Amino acid sequence: MKPLILVTNDDGVYSPGLRILYEAVRDLGKVVIVVPETPKSATGLGLTLHKPLRIMKMKVFGFEAYLVSGTPSDIIHIALSELLERKPDIVLSGINLGDNTSIQVILSSGTVGAAIQAVLLGIPAIAFSVAVSEPDELVENSKLKSIMVKISKFITKYVLENGIPQGVELLNVNFPSKVKDDIRVKVVPAAKLRFKERVLKRVDPQGKPYYWVYGEPLSAEPNTDVYVVLEEGNIAITPLKLDLNTILSNEEFKYFEPLVNELNKMLTG
Amino acid sequence: MKPLILVTNDDGVYSPGLRILYEAVRDLGKVVIVVPETPKSATGLGLTLHKPLRIMKMKVFGFEAYLVSGTPSDIIHIALSELLERKPDIVLSGINLGDNTSIQVILSSGTVGAAIQAVLLGIPAIAFSVAVSEPDELVENSKLKSIMVKISKFITKYVLENGIPQGVELLNVNFPSKVKDDIRVKVVPAAKLRFKERVLKRVDPQGKPYYWVYGEPLSAEPNTDVYVVLEEGNIAITPLKLDLNTILSNEEFKYFEPLVNELNKMLTG
Repeated sequence: MKPLILVTNDDGVYSPGLRILYEAVRDLGKVVIVVPETPKSATGLGLTLHKPLRIMKMKVFGFEAYLVSGTPSDIIHIALSELLERKPDIVLSGINLGDNTSIQVILSSGTVGAAIQAVLLGIPAIAFSVAVSEPDELVENSKLKSIMVKISKFITKYVLENGIPQGVELLNVNFPSKVKDDIRVKVVPAAKLRFKERVLKRVDPQGKPYYWVYGEPLSAEPNTDVYVVLEEGNIAITPLKLDLNTILSNEEFKYFEPLVNELNKMLTG
Repeated sequence: MKPLILVTNDDGVYSPGLRILYEAVRDLGKVVIVVPETPKSATGLGLTLHKPLRIMKMKVFGFEAYLVSGTPSDIIHIALSELLERKPDIVLSGINLGDNTSIQVILSSGTVGAAIQAVLLGIPAIAFSVAVSEPDELVENSKLKSIMVKISKFITKYVLENGIPQGVELLNVNFPSKVKDDIRVKVVPAAKLRFKERVLKRVDPQGKPYYWVYGEPLSAEPNTDVYVVLEEGNIAITPLKLDLNTILSNEEFKYFEPLVNELNKMLTG
């Protein structure tokens, strides 16, 4: 049976990153494309619970895509329930325009969010992103495009054939914005932070203030995704797991013991 | 110096959970309340980068609150940059109406999202939630309210005095919907899943289909937040960390080695 591949992209159907990912994997199986109707960057794992969703179908750039009026996370559920004949063998999310490096960015990323939703449902998933800031940086760089096609295709094929190892739940792949001569692929952990968030205050024509939230890049530690992609200009594969639980050390246990004892005294007293 | 406490709530300024949390901590320091203008449940760590934000100030229920036209994550940045005289000593998010148990729910929760943003900025944070499905379940249950006030106050005081231990980055507290006689506090890890997502298809008066995404509760494993809160009716404190990186075992390393070798051969060839 041909692999069933669900491709999504939080920038929507016109994203050049979606076209590149489709081109990369179209020969690896049956590809179904389901994307948000409008771009949904930085929506994290948000779900649309308060309003109903619509599905549209359109042909664009030689492929057929379903458009859903929701978030990247909604899309995984809508696709599984309404659009796919069976559970897909893999979910590919991207290629996002803008890197998704660091825990900070990963946790608020719609691209990684869609992949995380898939993983929670037991489907192997890969998130792909590229560190360009404008679509044309990608569209006009045929060398970068061709490397992204080749690398994305090979990684997807490898995961389809070998699965994802236990202890890893998700691969997060980030491409640099330019292809240097000695470009390499590295397996590295995610940095913690990528930005220092700032707020810019402006005044509207009525004299009332409004505020822009934006991020100012931080310098990165070597051997992290941020460093490998943005400083070195290499390609990073970051294996992630979703377990946020911490195994308490003896010392940490000693922190919680008196707290819980006191709280339980309050409840019985 | 009095502790500076930032209180937020993703259900907005009228949430009874916000009032309870304010009541619980008003005597512990200087409390500043900053909430989204409209309810922002299930927005995860989403940031508003594509449009500017507004801040309003209003008096309600005997306290003053700032309303921001953004997400819970935006609020942390706006508060730090524009509304607080210094970095707060603690960020409290909640009390959310509806539990935030399981990794699945935690990762898409606006309540926990705001706490995570604070942690990324190096501020200790606690997320509080209660497993009611209707506001009146809380409003009309004075026993539950009084226990939530006492417990939230004590936990906040404890964290203000002792910090959060290394290896833990965030406390996630969940109250049950009812107070049983022998109610207890337990420190437990988060379950992986809380819901099986489903999609309900309906047809509008024009004959066109629309879809609701919703979650069907799953049964929980003992000794998890879901089990302790929803099955046992106890109070769960779940210590969380944000590190999604996985330390590769030998076997996992063997998985990545041939992949990276092949990819690098492609890049040099």
